[in-house]
Amino acid sequence: MKITFLGTGGGIPAKHRNVSSLALQLADKKGVVWLFDCGEATQHQILHTSLKPGKINKIFITHMHGDHIYGLPGLLGTRSFHGAETPLTVYGPAGIREFIEVSLRASSTYVRYPLEIKEIDSNGPIFEDSEYVVSSAKLNHGITSYGFRVAEKEQPGALLAEKLKSEGVPPGPLYKHLKKGMDVTLPDGRFIQGKDFLGPPKSGKTVTIIGDTKFTEKCAELAEKADILVHEATFKESEVKLAEEYFHSTALQAAKTARAAGVKQLILNHISSRYQGKAVDLMLEEAREVFPETFIAEDLYSFTV
Amino acid sequence: MKITFLGTGGGIPAKHRNVSSLALQLADKKGVVWLFDCGEATQHQILHTSLKPGKINKIFITHMHGDHIYGLPGLLGTRSFHGAETPLTVYGPAGIREFIEVSLRASSTYVRYPLEIKEIDSNGPIFEDSEYVVSSAKLNHGITSYGFRVAEKEQPGALLAEKLKSEGVPPGPLYKHLKKGMDVTLPDGRFIQGKDFLGPPKSGKTVTIIGDTKFTEKCAELAEKADILVHEATFKESEVKLAEEYFHSTALQAAKTARAAGVKQLILNHISSRYQGKAVDLMLEEAREVFPETFIAEDLYSFTV
Repeated sequence: MKITFLGTGGGIPAKHRNVSSLALQLADKKGVVWLFDCGEATQHQILHTSLKPGKINKIFITHMHGDHIYGLPGLLGTRSFHGAETPLTVYGPAGIREFIEVSLRASSTYVRYPLEIKEIDSNGPIFEDSEYVVSSAKLNHGITSYGFRVAEKEQPGALLAEKLKSEGVPPGPLYKHLKKGMDVTLPDGRFIQGKDFLGPPKSGKTVTIIGDTKFTEKCAELAEKADILVHEATFKESEVKLAEEYFHSTALQAAKTARAAGVKQLILNHISSRYQGKAVDLMLEEAREVFPETFIAEDLYSFTV
Repeated sequence: MKITFLGTGGGIPAKHRNVSSLALQLADKKGVVWLFDCGEATQHQILHTSLKPGKINKIFITHMHGDHIYGLPGLLGTRSFHGAETPLTVYGPAGIREFIEVSLRASSTYVRYPLEIKEIDSNGPIFEDSEYVVSSAKLNHGITSYGFRVAEKEQPGALLAEKLKSEGVPPGPLYKHLKKGMDVTLPDGRFIQGKDFLGPPKSGKTVTIIGDTKFTEKCAELAEKADILVHEATFKESEVKLAEEYFHSTALQAAKTARAAGVKQLILNHISSRYQGKAVDLMLEEAREVFPETFIAEDLYSFTV
């Protein structure tokens, strides 16, 4: 999976950091993209990437604050303007349906693709297919705010083609069945079992993306052993009281969560525009003292896992 | 007055042209700014100017298409975030109130300044004070779309201080009354009339800003003898059928309107992103053949009148 940050600032847009959105490109061959949050001008940021709005088929909204949703009507409209006809599902807290429907209706915008809006209201799995499970957990932000965990499922191991050839099974349509782990009878009458010709199963990667929140143990639960935890860090530790008051986190708190969850990497996001240059370096230092594998997101930076 | 174009493209944002908005800085001493349309990322464009959201006290919306309104919720919220407490009035077609109110409520955005929303539904004056009159006229765009005419009122001429001094009237508080054209009795008993000590009255400037429209004579009426006409030019003349079909104008049609109205300058705006570089030059040439004083707006360009 590949994460591309489209907006890494908090609250209001700044020249160097747009408001919240990130794109997750799935590790499949169709180039599917999921978006997490969609602050104003997310579609503008996409213009500076190779991402195509038509490839986005799911948008997950962590919470209803303007800096996380005001880019939705424009992106949904532009996706249609570009001729996309593939379905799109938006997952978000209560209220997301009214916001989208009123915005599109008010502006006489009729999208040409099937648009589904799913309001979520509980913790647990919200989407599952043969390759992925997405779970949500309510955090602590004054208004309802979710974190999302995207877990790739374990995939069957690679087909051991050399072993098959050495046992006299020539390449052909049978390989397709064996690759799925099925058992087959060969033309010469031999019966062979797929499991004997597959390498070890590939464990899936996990990414956890935290919406705005003050420190809560829910974050560590949702991020348990994730490959990447994307966590908000609106404030430096010196402003921990402000963080508490405004239901946000400090970089240090995010680092403590990453350590408690045993994740591989922590990426700090949703940085207040009050911090620039050296102040951001200091924020990173604070976090790295507790969790060395910490990075700071910048607009249009990508991370692959 | 000074016009700064914040977005000069049509329909959807492009790297080189954002969606519609322009700022009009009034010729007063308070630095008041009026905005015309507010497409997505208007507040982002403002970050690249010296304009301050708190100085915007009126926003006029020509019509309800997304590329003209999706930046409103963000701008209104950011204006409050910056601490502005001065009133703001939004003028726009029916539906603008619901769009704003639902967007702000959905995102738990509570603006701290008095926000008034005036839905307009007819032609004629929509605002007037001692210095300005703003009038609207319905155009022809499939949905309700307005053009706006901003006219400075005639102002009294300058006080003829040299003439007063030569007649033995020394500078002092009396000058304030004379400047307003009032009559005064001097300490020495002489009675003098203000009108005798004022230069010729200063005629006000006029700017007409046209929303999206196909060719209609209403535009020329609204722009009559204006100093600047800002007119949409979504298409080149070779696409005149598309312009007709989508209720838009060509550059040539805008030029014909400018000529019919007898304006001083025409600025073409709302250029489709299909035109870039040489194609835009050709569009300008087409218009200049009919109306030589034509210019093409670019994002962040300013024009003073």
